[in-house]
Amino acid sequence: MFDPASLKYDGNGLIPAIAQDADSGEVLMMAWMNAESVAQTLHTGRVTYWSRSRQSFWVKGKSSGHVQELVDLRVDCDRDCLLVLVRQTGPACHTNRRTCFYTAVRDGAEVEIMEPMA
Amino acid sequence: MFDPASLKYDGNGLIPAIAQDADSGEVLMMAWMNAESVAQTLHTGRVTYWSRSRQSFWVKGKSSGHVQELVDLRVDCDRDCLLVLVRQTGPACHTNRRTCFYTAVRDGAEVEIMEPMA
Repeated sequence: MFDPASLKYDGNGLIPAIAQDADSGEVLMMAWMNAESVAQTLHTGRVTYWSRSRQSFWVKGKSSGHVQELVDLRVDCDRDCLLVLVRQTGPACHTNRRTCFYTAVRDGAEVEIMEPMA
Repeated sequence: MFDPASLKYDGNGLIPAIAQDADSGEVLMMAWMNAESVAQTLHTGRVTYWSRSRQSFWVKGKSSGHVQELVDLRVDCDRDCLLVLVRQTGPACHTNRRTCFYTAVRDGAEVEIMEPMA
């Protein structure tokens, strides 16, 4: 049996979770989970983070509709990072872009490589 | 101009960096950088982390030969997470697996989904 308590959390009880689009392979975002949000994610099939700014559970897309349906949850070799493969509805980023990683550093300058979704 | 000091680091001066295979799209690993390792990564084109356990720069693959050649460096919307697209030589994981995320949680149990490379 998998026990969320068996993962390694930081001093705040959190573990980083990388969300990757299960179909396109795009890395969408990185956010944090605590043991209970890991359990809820597995139980509900809806990716649920822990919001550090609000100090509360953050069911991704609950207010925006931009939900992440869990396809597969993976644990890394050190058990201190998670990879969640998801089906993303709409943009993952609060800026309305498909992913949060829309800024590239090229030739020493920042370049925006992604437009907000229509 | 891009200034590594403009990123948001945690209380230890570190930022998480996700390494993704530029060709296959596989998420290979997550490790940490400080401002100087971000600068070194951009300057040398060799992905360089900060080892929290050894408290020293960690030029990925320097001892193993399993280097990561930087293809593109991306910053997320909150400027507190990096995505590095890389050309990975050999396995990214110290267990000799292609990626560190070789354990999946399925039907409540942990399943190994990847063999060590030959």
